[in-house]
Amino acid sequence: MTARYLQEEHHIFRDAFRKFLDKEAYPYFNDWEDTGIIPRSFWAKMGDNGFLCPWVDEKFGGLNTDFGYSVVINEELEKVGTSLIGIGLHNDIVVPYINEYGTEEQKKRWLPKCISSEYITAIAMTEPGAGSDLAGIGTTAVKDGDHYIVNGQKTFITNGIHADLILVVCKTNPKERHKGISLLMIERDTPGFSRGRKLEKIGLHAQDTAELIFEDAKVPVENLLGKEGEGFYYLMKQLQQERLLVCISAQTAAEVMLKLAIKYVKERQAFGKSISQFQTVQFRLAEMATEIEIGRTFLDDLIEQHIEGKDVVTKVSMAKWWLTDMAKKVASESMQLHGGYGYMEEYEIARRYRDVPVSAIYAGTNEIMKTIIVKNMGL
Amino acid sequence: MTARYLQEEHHIFRDAFRKFLDKEAYPYFNDWEDTGIIPRSFWAKMGDNGFLCPWVDEKFGGLNTDFGYSVVINEELEKVGTSLIGIGLHNDIVVPYINEYGTEEQKKRWLPKCISSEYITAIAMTEPGAGSDLAGIGTTAVKDGDHYIVNGQKTFITNGIHADLILVVCKTNPKERHKGISLLMIERDTPGFSRGRKLEKIGLHAQDTAELIFEDAKVPVENLLGKEGEGFYYLMKQLQQERLLVCISAQTAAEVMLKLAIKYVKERQAFGKSISQFQTVQFRLAEMATEIEIGRTFLDDLIEQHIEGKDVVTKVSMAKWWLTDMAKKVASESMQLHGGYGYMEEYEIARRYRDVPVSAIYAGTNEIMKTIIVKNMGL
Amino acid sequence: MTARYLQEEHHIFRDAFRKFLDKEAYPYFNDWEDTGIIPRSFWAKMGDNGFLCPWVDEKFGGLNTDFGYSVVINEELEKVGTSLIGIGLHNDIVVPYINEYGTEEQKKRWLPKCISSEYITAIAMTEPGAGSDLAGIGTTAVKDGDHYIVNGQKTFITNGIHADLILVVCKTNPKERHKGISLLMIERDTPGFSRGRKLEKIGLHAQDTAELIFEDAKVPVENLLGKEGEGFYYLMKQLQQERLLVCISAQTAAEVMLKLAIKYVKERQAFGKSISQFQTVQFRLAEMATEIEIGRTFLDDLIEQHIEGKDVVTKVSMAKWWLTDMAKKVASESMQLHGGYGYMEEYEIARRYRDVPVSAIYAGTNEIMKTIIVKNMGL
Amino acid sequence: MTARYLQEEHHIFRDAFRKFLDKEAYPYFNDWEDTGIIPRSFWAKMGDNGFLCPWVDEKFGGLNTDFGYSVVINEELEKVGTSLIGIGLHNDIVVPYINEYGTEEQKKRWLPKCISSEYITAIAMTEPGAGSDLAGIGTTAVKDGDHYIVNGQKTFITNGIHADLILVVCKTNPKERHKGISLLMIERDTPGFSRGRKLEKIGLHAQDTAELIFEDAKVPVENLLGKEGEGFYYLMKQLQQERLLVCISAQTAAEVMLKLAIKYVKERQAFGKSISQFQTVQFRLAEMATEIEIGRTFLDDLIEQHIEGKDVVTKVSMAKWWLTDMAKKVASESMQLHGGYGYMEEYEIARRYRDVPVSAIYAGTNEIMKTIIVKNMGL
Repeated sequence: MTARYLQEEHHIFRDAFRKFLDKEAYPYFNDWEDTGIIPRSFWAKMGDNGFLCPWVDEKFGGLNTDFGYSVVINEELEKVGTSLIGIGLHNDIVVPYINEYGTEEQKKRWLPKCISSEYITAIAMTEPGAGSDLAGIGTTAVKDGDHYIVNGQKTFITNGIHADLILVVCKTNPKERHKGISLLMIERDTPGFSRGRKLEKIGLHAQDTAELIFEDAKVPVENLLGKEGEGFYYLMKQLQQERLLVCISAQTAAEVMLKLAIKYVKERQAFGKSISQFQTVQFRLAEMATEIEIGRTFLDDLIEQHIEGKDVVTKVSMAKWWLTDMAKKVASESMQLHGGYGYMEEYEIARRYRDVPVSAIYAGTNEIMKTIIVKNMGL
Repeated sequence: MTARYLQEEHHIFRDAFRKFLDKEAYPYFNDWEDTGIIPRSFWAKMGDNGFLCPWVDEKFGGLNTDFGYSVVINEELEKVGTSLIGIGLHNDIVVPYINEYGTEEQKKRWLPKCISSEYITAIAMTEPGAGSDLAGIGTTAVKDGDHYIVNGQKTFITNGIHADLILVVCKTNPKERHKGISLLMIERDTPGFSRGRKLEKIGLHAQDTAELIFEDAKVPVENLLGKEGEGFYYLMKQLQQERLLVCISAQTAAEVMLKLAIKYVKERQAFGKSISQFQTVQFRLAEMATEIEIGRTFLDDLIEQHIEGKDVVTKVSMAKWWLTDMAKKVASESMQLHGGYGYMEEYEIARRYRDVPVSAIYAGTNEIMKTIIVKNMGL
Repeated sequence: MTARYLQEEHHIFRDAFRKFLDKEAYPYFNDWEDTGIIPRSFWAKMGDNGFLCPWVDEKFGGLNTDFGYSVVINEELEKVGTSLIGIGLHNDIVVPYINEYGTEEQKKRWLPKCISSEYITAIAMTEPGAGSDLAGIGTTAVKDGDHYIVNGQKTFITNGIHADLILVVCKTNPKERHKGISLLMIERDTPGFSRGRKLEKIGLHAQDTAELIFEDAKVPVENLLGKEGEGFYYLMKQLQQERLLVCISAQTAAEVMLKLAIKYVKERQAFGKSISQFQTVQFRLAEMATEIEIGRTFLDDLIEQHIEGKDVVTKVSMAKWWLTDMAKKVASESMQLHGGYGYMEEYEIARRYRDVPVSAIYAGTNEIMKTIIVKNMGL
Repeated sequence: MTARYLQEEHHIFRDAFRKFLDKEAYPYFNDWEDTGIIPRSFWAKMGDNGFLCPWVDEKFGGLNTDFGYSVVINEELEKVGTSLIGIGLHNDIVVPYINEYGTEEQKKRWLPKCISSEYITAIAMTEPGAGSDLAGIGTTAVKDGDHYIVNGQKTFITNGIHADLILVVCKTNPKERHKGISLLMIERDTPGFSRGRKLEKIGLHAQDTAELIFEDAKVPVENLLGKEGEGFYYLMKQLQQERLLVCISAQTAAEVMLKLAIKYVKERQAFGKSISQFQTVQFRLAEMATEIEIGRTFLDDLIEQHIEGKDVVTKVSMAKWWLTDMAKKVASESMQLHGGYGYMEEYEIARRYRDVPVSAIYAGTNEIMKTIIVKNMGL
């Protein structure tokens, strides 16, 4: 069975992309995890082969592909390892803002570089004192002639070390909550902008996460994305796709982990037989397989509706918390089925176990997801 | 949102059927629960209005409708109350056997009566000593001239009191397990056939469940359905639809219960506000709404594939255990949210709570479902 | 293993009480469930044999026993059936108020009758519009000379049909919330007092639960219990023991249900062996046995501390929600292990399944328990 | 509240030990995690201060303390970090074998060194091909004159790098399963013994876990512990204490994690208030606090019975799976409550999250625990 939104051409593309990853990613991934960074050379190869933002219009250097290709790319990257999620963030979260709210001039300036990997992007929302409560951010951008003077600090920024172009959420009007928010694109060499340390996380080791610091950073007014004060609404509109990406990762990770568990229990012998022959082991696998199947059906249905342009934000919020919680359970069960080996770094399930919980936190915690669902229940 | 398999005509049909139920079922349902039986007069009205087996071919008196209509009928009956499940059993489980494996002569004899309600049907698999292990049944049918002599006892038979025509699973060859099984259609007045007592259940009070007793029951050989020794395989083929019906009921019940809970918490005041304003209440509703949405998407996808004639037996087994477990959880949570009222018979949630757990047991226990899934996992 | 608070004499007492129940309760219990009431003759026999309020001081006709005896009585009654919970309510919840807050004269008037069963007691807190939020009750008691004029309505009153003496929670000062509450003892023949209908519940069928109606009911001022305006604080102090009783019932019910499940799976055959031989069945029983053992240890520890006079209200709140949730899970699992039989009234597990959920609701819902725990966590 | 088995002297001891740890362990623990080893200098300080095996008889250099002291030591070490678990293994798991089954001569040879830290011990059961199924091990010890020639490989050995004296479980009679097992004490410089690589685990980074290799290792017959062929029974008898230690760690870790979560939610602000003010946050904390309280009560009861010399192996098996599962849940919830910070190494909860799951695996997987419980249920 395959999703309705995937056609023959997507399958061919998947095969091609998988071959690319077999050659360029799988053999090196453990090293990247050890060194704590995805090398820019890999980003470059992704760009060279048309795997960065292929959905962008041809006039800016893209391939004009539909979202089905993005799904394929994100699934296949996740199969290699969750640390590659920064590429999906670049491809399908940050660059779409430029495409959606950028002027023609901004698109010309930035999109080709995003496609080639010359510019790696990031989005900076969270601050040390403001996470889920986005309207409570403290980073300010004060207009001064033809520049904004930006002050503040951002944290947990995916691609934070690599990023050349950062969508920074700031308050252009600190007296307002939602209506004071604007989006500025801040480039690598902006005076007053510096990076804090690379954050040590319990998982996603190759993914560079960092703090960003703005001290009287001088950003040209041409770098404002969309209109002043509209930032919050832009963010809300893009969140559906952002959260869908987290869902795709979590679902794919769960599928990978079940496969790892099945493989292990078939091979492992105890008490004179394969442990796959124990009924309790079998039922646990059947239960995981069920939730994974149900999750996949729900996700594919949402992707299809997203492609059709429907507003499925409530359902995506449902999927986000349910799929990531499910993936956490699958991780825990699959590790347990591995016995002592499940706890050893050399077994993939160990890495998956510590990679997965962040999916319940980023792109809006699962608690925020429930708050969104509640809002739409008419209570 | 509505399922892809439902067209405008199904919605019109649903409205019509609901009007019928508003008049003929809702006002009397509590009485039926008290007296412990759905009156034949209601079956007759169902028949008169074309709501019994509308899918049967026109030449036998049916309307030749697709399975979407059956879904609508079963959903709307479930909304009235789970005790009406015997109608779905007749419509979409037992009569299909006649249609599928009956001779032209058998179809002519029985189908029109099934459509008019002259014949209410039942299926008799379970025995006091054999439930999930179907191949272990002990009811025998020994050929003697132009009759089978049937001996044995069946239990937990839905429609057991009303039934005029019963599909009885027997062993025509007791030496074999699966290959010894045949299906006999046994009619009301068969000598040697009697009914045991009506079984008292904790729920489904209006649904007549009974024991059936066969003591040298004399069944004409013309009442054999299909071929001798093929019964087990016929049963296996029909189980997909049978279990799908249980899924439809459980899912619909869950949807009804969530509505009841939402209505109650919005009305109920405590500590100076509606209890729908408490965050823990809200999150529980959001969690239920999520699982119900996910369940519905999965179920609709399976129905669609079932209509397309696909073999989705593994997925239906997944749906059967997951949806019924989910419905049980929703029942428990929704009752709890009703406080003391949830425990009172006059509140619908109370009845739902004791109706729902049987769905995890009948049509193959949830444990059997997991066994089926396991078989298809290549362990 | 046996609890530290139980001595040899308690065990002897338990044996004697069990013999009494074997003769006077077990053989009739199903009839009581059918007729919907525990006959007063049984209460009378309880009284005749010293099983009603044995803890009362000898000068009022009691036996001056410690709380260990109450535990034994409540456990053994629960083993017969949860519908007997009204006796525990009388013995260990309502009568203790008289003992604790009554004047010498009140004690003389009422305690001997409570011991003999001449007076069956009840406590009336909940109202149609006020459950968990006790301070929000609307029943008023206005002093008028040497009487209080009581107006209001109470619901969900255990022993509501039998009760001869009812502790009614009213507002003597409706302007206050907690400080306006007083306790009045209202007797059977009080003018202006009437009973509403017996409430139909999904379980506890033999337990009479009713509404009580007060329309200008004239209650002598001598029937005030304790001081005016102190009622709320009295209630708070007694809740520890009340909730402990619910814990004792829920724990005992869970123990009974596990035994029923073990017995059934050992006897039931499927696929050529006892179903107790399936590993998934075994693990589920082991998991239930574990939670039951852990629950028992916690409960016995609390009972011991309660006997020592310690304030363990937070821990009792913990036990209340956890044990009743656990008992609900055990009911659901044990029913499922019974297959179709679990759903039949003639099997005890069916009755247990519908009796158990009220324990998560009465004596303070489990949500209220969590609120109490939170209050003591220093958040 | 404090456990009955803890007296004034234990509390004084705890204070003293905590002061020691405040000076010698807490300030260095993160470094140890980074370098991946607990330095021998810390072991030496533990020995110098009488914290290694204080329960050993004074004639061998011990302090003859009761098990309550061991509980205190293990709890306080766990509070620093789970990586210190190797010290508990030495103190309360391995050295007790010498004490229990060693000859006077062996005790004199080894116990003083174990107390001083000159000898760090380990126990080697698991093999690459045999984990839970202990009777299936393949390491052989063949007697050859006054030596055993040992061949085989062991894995997941705690203290595997440091260990100077290793209790190796071998088959002296490979034809037998349980009856062929013997225990050999193998010393550091034994010819033919070498260590494999230090294993990389997802947690417990400072704990050295390694493979051990025996290739014609020549072990003097004086190093046999107890009798040939009795090893399995010795192991069974010691497992009660071994598993109790895992319980103590898991329970203590859960207590620490709840404290971390409470501290965080009180400090963290969102939407204009401390997140500890959200009802869903409060209930989750209350639920964790409940399970932690219940777990502690159960554990303390078991410790008390263990000290009294009772056989509580079934209950310890119950505690082992339930407490470790509970600790895993607490880790997951507590991390989630930390939001993004929960995923950062610099927050203690992150480390706890990846440390805790191994407790459900080692010292007998939770599945083995359930198997043991089942054996004692009379199914």
